Amino acid sequence: MSTGTVFGVGLGPGDPDLMSVRADRLLRGARHVAFFRKAGRPGQARRIVDGMIPDSAEEFPMEYPVTTEIPLTDPRYNEVLSAFYADCTDHLRGLAEQGADIVVLCEGDPFFYGSFMHLYTRLKHQIPVEVVPAITGMSGAWTATGAPVTWGDDILTVLMGTLDEDTLAARMGDADALVVMKIGRNIDKVRRALRAAGKYEDAYLIEYATMPNQTVQLLSDAEGKVTPYFSIIVVHGQGRRP
Amino acid sequence: MSTGTVFGVGLGPGDPDLMSVRADRLLRGARHVAFFRKAGRPGQARRIVDGMIPDSAEEFPMEYPVTTEIPLTDPRYNEVLSAFYADCTDHLRGLAEQGADIVVLCEGDPFFYGSFMHLYTRLKHQIPVEVVPAITGMSGAWTATGAPVTWGDDILTVLMGTLDEDTLAARMGDADALVVMKIGRNIDKVRRALRAAGKYEDAYLIEYATMPNQTVQLLSDAEGKVTPYFSIIVVHGQGRRP
Repeated sequence: MSTGTVFGVGLGPGDPDLMSVRADRLLRGARHVAFFRKAGRPGQARRIVDGMIPDSAEEFPMEYPVTTEIPLTDPRYNEVLSAFYADCTDHLRGLAEQGADIVVLCEGDPFFYGSFMHLYTRLKHQIPVEVVPAITGMSGAWTATGAPVTWGDDILTVLMGTLDEDTLAARMGDADALVVMKIGRNIDKVRRALRAAGKYEDAYLIEYATMPNQTVQLLSDAEGKVTPYFSIIVVHGQGRRP
Repeated sequence: MSTGTVFGVGLGPGDPDLMSVRADRLLRGARHVAFFRKAGRPGQARRIVDGMIPDSAEEFPMEYPVTTEIPLTDPRYNEVLSAFYADCTDHLRGLAEQGADIVVLCEGDPFFYGSFMHLYTRLKHQIPVEVVPAITGMSGAWTATGAPVTWGDDILTVLMGTLDEDTLAARMGDADALVVMKIGRNIDKVRRALRAAGKYEDAYLIEYATMPNQTVQLLSDAEGKVTPYFSIIVVHGQGRRP
């Protein structure tokens, strides 16, 4: 019996119609499906593939042992997560060694700020692993704004809202086009940094890009708004255009 | 008769299997297909959809009147291109007003450094225009390297090789993860800037990402190499990883 393959399948921004033809085929033929989720939640990745994966597929939810309960700066954070990823890896490798192909659901693009990379780096020297790239959440977000994000020689900078305020402000100031991800509870800090960089008035807030509940608004029209972690802020570049 | 729609359809990095389900459906049902190309060439976008679009589809090649014959800094460059985009727009609007839907082929993602945006901004207040996002060329490139491009709080910077050397070097120095596009004849300048930023040894050169002739190599192993304009250079971030 030959060893199975772990497929890290990018699901894209959320609309199943925007998945790749390859992802669609792998999902509809899947016999083993693994996905990350917060304990006690259905999981956004799993929800995106509702009605796509066969009823007969064996599902393996991988529940994060911690999300925001331990600060990132606490050494225990990395210890706990590292043990978690090692457990997930053991399970997936066990299945593959029994000959099973496993589809791991990845929101967005697997190699772009995705959790799958923590499995990938542990598995890639042990068993076959393939990565199916996808439309990023930020592509979904800038498309939703109805305006191109980069023109000509614009420099695009992608920042995480988890960075400290000074770093955010400095890098926002340098950027032509700008994407900020991981917003959620970081939104007030991100607002202050955008103001300091002179880009606040031009910033758009996109929630649930490409999904039925998608919203697009100027950030300045969303004062005081509570927004999900996976919201995205976009500032469009203004480069050369004939 | 109702006005038709212009669809700006992102084709992704080149592998038809990585097109979105929506793009695949629009292409296979297309009755009018428009695409940019250099005069006298088949055109890369058109080549990607070989065998996908119906034989009966009416094709409208839009041939750039100029690519590198006039320098970007010459005012005539913008004038010539502006007239060209206006002509293309007139033709597409004429078709749509006769009730036709038109698929415009876009390499990569239409709103990310794409030529389609020049048609989009001219058409969007006149007739219905829809944009189908796609996997970017850079996603195809970093997936081809077999390593995640961004971890944790890494800052991603996307630079065009057409920028001046000092700007390139300064922004490369600030970046955690780095993508450089529009390489081609800019490669020697890009190499010098990467060296000045201390990132030369970590840079990968990806040609024809996701296509049958894909190559991936360390840039330092490709000394003296002539590489296409659409080659991509990737430097991976080294951020937090449990």
